[in-house]
Amino acid sequence: MKNVVLASTSTLHGQTYLEYLLPVIKELFSGIEEVIFIPYARPGGISHDEYTSRVTTAFTALNLRVRGLHTFENPVAAVQKGQAFFTGGGNTFLLVQQLHALQVMDALKAAVEGGKPYLGSSAGSNIGGVNMQTTNDMPIVYPASFQTMGLIPFNLNPHYMDPIPGVLHMGESRETRIREFQVQQPLPVVGLREGSWIRVKGGVITLEGSEPAKIFEAGKEAYELSAGKEIIFE
Amino acid sequence: MKNVVLASTSTLHGQTYLEYLLPVIKELFSGIEEVIFIPYARPGGISHDEYTSRVTTAFTALNLRVRGLHTFENPVAAVQKGQAFFTGGGNTFLLVQQLHALQVMDALKAAVEGGKPYLGSSAGSNIGGVNMQTTNDMPIVYPASFQTMGLIPFNLNPHYMDPIPGVLHMGESRETRIREFQVQQPLPVVGLREGSWIRVKGGVITLEGSEPAKIFEAGKEAYELSAGKEIIFE
Repeated sequence: MKNVVLASTSTLHGQTYLEYLLPVIKELFSGIEEVIFIPYARPGGISHDEYTSRVTTAFTALNLRVRGLHTFENPVAAVQKGQAFFTGGGNTFLLVQQLHALQVMDALKAAVEGGKPYLGSSAGSNIGGVNMQTTNDMPIVYPASFQTMGLIPFNLNPHYMDPIPGVLHMGESRETRIREFQVQQPLPVVGLREGSWIRVKGGVITLEGSEPAKIFEAGKEAYELSAGKEIIFE
Repeated sequence: MKNVVLASTSTLHGQTYLEYLLPVIKELFSGIEEVIFIPYARPGGISHDEYTSRVTTAFTALNLRVRGLHTFENPVAAVQKGQAFFTGGGNTFLLVQQLHALQVMDALKAAVEGGKPYLGSSAGSNIGGVNMQTTNDMPIVYPASFQTMGLIPFNLNPHYMDPIPGVLHMGESRETRIREFQVQQPLPVVGLREGSWIRVKGGVITLEGSEPAKIFEAGKEAYELSAGKEIIFE
């Protein structure tokens, strides 16, 4: 049974890393001793070791051991043997490029579809979608493919932002960008605001957290979905 | 002699399309009768024809004829024979994917390096850089390569935005994104604010317009460059 949390962000303004998610992580990883952390997205360019120790600190309160995937000689075997996984945020292009280069993407998908718990935040949530083509990140490296795990039958836009009133900037809004994507591919996109996450338990997908999500279906007006509701597309 | 204008944006808030750039375009395209418009970036997903007619309207005041590159049977030959070029904004991935698929990228680079005037705005300016890897756009299609024309020996970030005071959103700032790029490639990046453009005349590259630019060199503190100044990196 799939057991997945895909969060918009790791950190809320004024809180510590993962603070608001700790009760969710506790439930997701109940019965787990060691979580494999996937550090490849490298937020701000920090090293894999630095990133992993940030997670180790945050998980201490939950009595969870953490080991960085970069420390294993054979990352595919590590994923196959691992109990549970967390992929942190940062740059989605870098994350996806690494996962394809190491052939971990398919192994991770198989492990999670087989029922091992998975937590993603930001870039780590993007890879739960069908592809990474609704990321906000810069293409700082060239991945072999934009395909991701497809743990959910739609795409995410993490850190979803409504236009800020009074800002005169003429760059495209988040909504315009998502609509440009849907001209190319008519895939639903969930605009996941900070404070929200997607929960997958078996075949049931729900929106959780403090914020409604903005839902974009190709050819339909965008609409809001309240927290607690199931996410279903025809 | 290279003769190039790369603008941050086509449109300033409260103005019509290209309004603030008309004097610049008039000088750039002086002596030119027909400009080939490259519409592939399709802002908001509009059609090539719609986009071209928007430009035709804006260029009427300058007595410039406009023809869309998409209307030629052989776009490479059209670029080789064309007098001058304008590439409009929209989605940089879509633009670059099309230019590589049609083999126009190299032909356009050769034409512009041979002295034919070139105007870019937003995505059309991004392709004047070394690569498109500091675009703000979503990866809505997968291009065969991220390489662009390299008309300038650095990258651009059009629509450059400073953080907005009081916004509690935790997504990466523009500066953080550019710094993540420079961990991968130590290429200078010019954060080009709306209202500014880069002017290339032969070997001289200057910043023009109403705003200073924010300059990012790998391993250095970011700094401001005033309009009117030459852009030189060691």
